[in-house]
Amino acid sequence: MFAWDQQSQSDAPDQQFVEHGLPAVPHVLIIGGGFGGLSAARRLRAANVQVTLLDRRNHHVFQPLLYQVATATLSPGDIASPIRWILRRQHNLRVLLGEADSIDVARRRVTLADGATMDYDYLILAPGARHTYFGHDGWAGAAPGLKTLEDALEIRRRVLLAFEWAERESDAAEQQKLLTFAIVGGGPTGVELAGTLAEIARHTLRGEFRSVDTSRTRIVLIEAGPTILATFPEKLRTAARKSLARLGVAIRERTAVTAVDAHGVTLATGERVDARTVVWAAGVAASPITRTLNVPLDRSGRVVVNKDLSVPGHPEVFVVGDAASFTHQGGVPLPGVAQVAIQGAAHAAANILRKTAGAATEPFQYHDKGNMAIIGRGSAVAVLGHLQIAGFAAWCLWLFVHIFQLIGFRNRLVVMIQWAAAYMTFQRSVRLITNRNDSSRLES
Amino acid sequence: MFAWDQQSQSDAPDQQFVEHGLPAVPHVLIIGGGFGGLSAARRLRAANVQVTLLDRRNHHVFQPLLYQVATATLSPGDIASPIRWILRRQHNLRVLLGEADSIDVARRRVTLADGATMDYDYLILAPGARHTYFGHDGWAGAAPGLKTLEDALEIRRRVLLAFEWAERESDAAEQQKLLTFAIVGGGPTGVELAGTLAEIARHTLRGEFRSVDTSRTRIVLIEAGPTILATFPEKLRTAARKSLARLGVAIRERTAVTAVDAHGVTLATGERVDARTVVWAAGVAASPITRTLNVPLDRSGRVVVNKDLSVPGHPEVFVVGDAASFTHQGGVPLPGVAQVAIQGAAHAAANILRKTAGAATEPFQYHDKGNMAIIGRGSAVAVLGHLQIAGFAAWCLWLFVHIFQLIGFRNRLVVMIQWAAAYMTFQRSVRLITNRNDSSRLES
Repeated sequence: MFAWDQQSQSDAPDQQFVEHGLPAVPHVLIIGGGFGGLSAARRLRAANVQVTLLDRRNHHVFQPLLYQVATATLSPGDIASPIRWILRRQHNLRVLLGEADSIDVARRRVTLADGATMDYDYLILAPGARHTYFGHDGWAGAAPGLKTLEDALEIRRRVLLAFEWAERESDAAEQQKLLTFAIVGGGPTGVELAGTLAEIARHTLRGEFRSVDTSRTRIVLIEAGPTILATFPEKLRTAARKSLARLGVAIRERTAVTAVDAHGVTLATGERVDARTVVWAAGVAASPITRTLNVPLDRSGRVVVNKDLSVPGHPEVFVVGDAASFTHQGGVPLPGVAQVAIQGAAHAAANILRKTAGAATEPFQYHDKGNMAIIGRGSAVAVLGHLQIAGFAAWCLWLFVHIFQLIGFRNRLVVMIQWAAAYMTFQRSVRLITNRNDSSRLES
Repeated sequence: MFAWDQQSQSDAPDQQFVEHGLPAVPHVLIIGGGFGGLSAARRLRAANVQVTLLDRRNHHVFQPLLYQVATATLSPGDIASPIRWILRRQHNLRVLLGEADSIDVARRRVTLADGATMDYDYLILAPGARHTYFGHDGWAGAAPGLKTLEDALEIRRRVLLAFEWAERESDAAEQQKLLTFAIVGGGPTGVELAGTLAEIARHTLRGEFRSVDTSRTRIVLIEAGPTILATFPEKLRTAARKSLARLGVAIRERTAVTAVDAHGVTLATGERVDARTVVWAAGVAASPITRTLNVPLDRSGRVVVNKDLSVPGHPEVFVVGDAASFTHQGGVPLPGVAQVAIQGAAHAAANILRKTAGAATEPFQYHDKGNMAIIGRGSAVAVLGHLQIAGFAAWCLWLFVHIFQLIGFRNRLVVMIQWAAAYMTFQRSVRLITNRNDSSRLES
């Protein structure tokens, strides 16, 4: 089916990687299997191009539900699907596992971390973002972020382990430290984590411990900017603050963090929050591969793209999603949300098809479909055009939209069951401490 | 509620572990939260004793379904539950996370890996077994076994990664090595793994790869003893061999393995099986903590227990499950299966209650409820008393028994859905490669 399929049979044995030969049709390389990469691949389904999708994971993760893996409600398998399974029926496409390391735009060649190379005619770069510690990389060990399934399992491990060790702790001060959770960053992820952790402490774990009163759990949500949920209107932020307060979450706005270690965080006010578990939900930066393009980047490492999403000086290279900085006339750059990646990637793929047909590319127009965040049981906020809703209705909408967007009927069914059971029983079904010496003490 | 709950409030701050004071009622310490430990705990539910259950994991694993985690059908959370959740309503019991390191039977004291100590009046030792490489510990890296959730995820990672790398491999011989899976050990676990891997290669992955023909996958099941499924009658073994052959599994009986490395296994015949993935399903040994009892052990490190399951010379210490060697008059030692652990642990707990009531202990009698193994889609073997069945009926029985025995309504429901979907679509829902540098090449 592919030129390189033929070739692979006769390749020299020492060649580690199946290179494509001279393609009869243009070769489109997509880097990244997130929302952007999948959207681009699908847009190219019926096109007369050869497509390769490269990702360093074998699975696509439905990132909006990652915090539910971190908080023991869902299993990794519930929110992730193998990329090659998702795209199995797309016969002009192959999926390869590998990590893109650098891009040589002059030679139109991508080099992988293992040294293999891949040539392209068109490149769609959708590598996503990573969390960043704003220059304090040393904080990473004490304050894991939440971008991958492994991150989510690590946060889950630390949260559950903190309660286990509190049960074995006889020193009251140390026990309270174990029962204190600091969440740095008041965006949707931080708010969702804080709300869910509060519910776990108050309801899920109630009655299971003998030395610990889990209702003494303290959750502190710290935001450096002027407000939590900055992208939402003030009316909804007020509703969110009320919901969080009802759950017992302490909110610290306009409060930067100046130090993080295994025993807590220090705030810009000089105040110290003693906490054995710190989660980082503040700030993301584009994947470092953007640097190898040698084109202008913004402060977060994002490529400042042209109106048609191509890279300045390289009309055959497009950057989409969290790695791109795109600004509508006079506005702020588009946010790092799934819809921006999905729409941008489809637009970039369409522009490639325009080019292969000899036509001019068209500028990207983003259509804002809305914005929502969940706070806790029966509580969420949502903006849909001019509509602003908070509370139970927003929560139902959130559930519906997220179930609907999940990939695969079985995942939808299983997630619905898990949510229904969690709602009815307050239980979380995936309270497993796994990985890395399970019985080890939290690092000091 | 506990004496030590009172004390824990006033403990010296430097004391790392909440010690129980002088108990008003006997303190029963259970080591292990597997089938045995849970059974013992439940038997002591209404008794006037204080119970502590210690495990190095926070979760109980339903081991008979572990191979389905290794083969991407179920998520870890589907077959595991937090021990403290399972026993939450048992008010005379506390659950502690910690790894027992040694037992001082003279002082009736257990020392944990982190140095903490726990005193007991009665001890029920149910630590289970680990896989053993019969002195070849160097084989562990190349041939992981299947005893924990981490083991299962590691096998899943290797199996899925092998196909991914085969897709990127241009050398036909290396590709075939990546598509060859050697399973060492022809007991139920080995048979179940072999059958499921064959189905994954033939059905699940079909059509998803572009360079690889997954039907070329080779699965070799190697058994040193005279036959696979040695504990089953020959009639059922014949049926199992036929089912495996139909799935394309090559069976090598009476064939010991003499060497294992990252490129395959060497057989006693001198033959070499080139395989990039080797799974160890041969041989288990009791947890090494049995050695610290300083009592006679059998070849597998199991404690040769008295008729009442107590340890010779220590009537207050009982050993049950995979760590005990118990022989009915003239017979072979009881096998390392769940029913032996469940019945033995309940009996040991009952004997402790007899002793606290001043009565004599009673000898253990094992009631064999049957034996079953699944081979593949619609195929299993089962022995129930004088009844021997194979094929679809045995398979239905297997499904029913295992669903029924799972802990928790939600787990049952979710597992049923996963199985129904897997049966109807041939799909496996948890095909995720996670942990340890996902894009790394299989170790050489």
